[in-house]
Amino acid sequence: MIKVKRIDHVAIAVADRDAAARDLATVFGLAAGAREHVASQRTDVAFLHAHPATAPHDDAALEICAPAPGGGNAGLERFLAKRGPGLHHICFEVEDLPGALSALKAAGVRLIDESPRPGARGHMVAFLHPAATGGVLFELCAPAAAHGAAGGAGS
Amino acid sequence: MIKVKRIDHVAIAVADRDAAARDLATVFGLAAGAREHVASQRTDVAFLHAHPATAPHDDAALEICAPAPGGGNAGLERFLAKRGPGLHHICFEVEDLPGALSALKAAGVRLIDESPRPGARGHMVAFLHPAATGGVLFELCAPAAAHGAAGGAGS
Repeated sequence: MIKVKRIDHVAIAVADRDAAARDLATVFGLAAGAREHVASQRTDVAFLHAHPATAPHDDAALEICAPAPGGGNAGLERFLAKRGPGLHHICFEVEDLPGALSALKAAGVRLIDESPRPGARGHMVAFLHPAATGGVLFELCAPAAAHGAAGGAGS
Repeated sequence: MIKVKRIDHVAIAVADRDAAARDLATVFGLAAGAREHVASQRTDVAFLHAHPATAPHDDAALEICAPAPGGGNAGLERFLAKRGPGLHHICFEVEDLPGALSALKAAGVRLIDESPRPGARGHMVAFLHPAATGGVLFELCAPAAAHGAAGGAGS
């Protein structure tokens, strides 16, 4: 239905972002990437990279995500209460996020977000409903530089 | 403690490998990669790639894994019975798998496999105990070409 480019990141839900990011970076020799509060999703996230993120590359990252203190993401809080820390979702990068969401919707794939919304690192993001993908939560993202890139000049 | 190279794959546990692989490939436009029965782990696995696997690349793959019929992997069967289909583990590629396991063991990291064992695609693999990594199951792998690469000729 759509054609994804690559796995952008794999997300791990935790209660304490900084402790989990520090521990995993230590065990696996990962480099710290972006670390931010994502207001639109009420989460605190930290990215970890196998390659130092000093230059653009296509390597899939880990995203360590925790509910923000004092009213965090409700889905993430339910996940942690039910299962404890663990693998949470896979995020694919796509070229044209609005187009991908339209194509999925037209094909009857259930979406959590029918329109892109702001995510971490300036990306636009949208989640699919896990019922549509065998119980696994998937996110789609388009990097900041790719926003509005669909259409193009035709040359 | 160690220095991983990249995420090799993210594994999704399912009851029916072929149906899940077909459905995810259709939704996300993924290319079918290796599909095999891994006797040593009593699993049936199928790899899916965002890029067609016609040439070597560093793109992280999805591994769809199911217990083999008639006496499948006990851990995977417990996972499915308890949680249903879902994200199961992350696999990092390392240069020197025996060396990585020794370093982790020396640092007190609990291992499921203290020695490499045969995995899918001719890789040697080993799992870490999730209690050592915040509740997330991690696998390490070394591709077939890298077996025994540690040590080297010093030139």
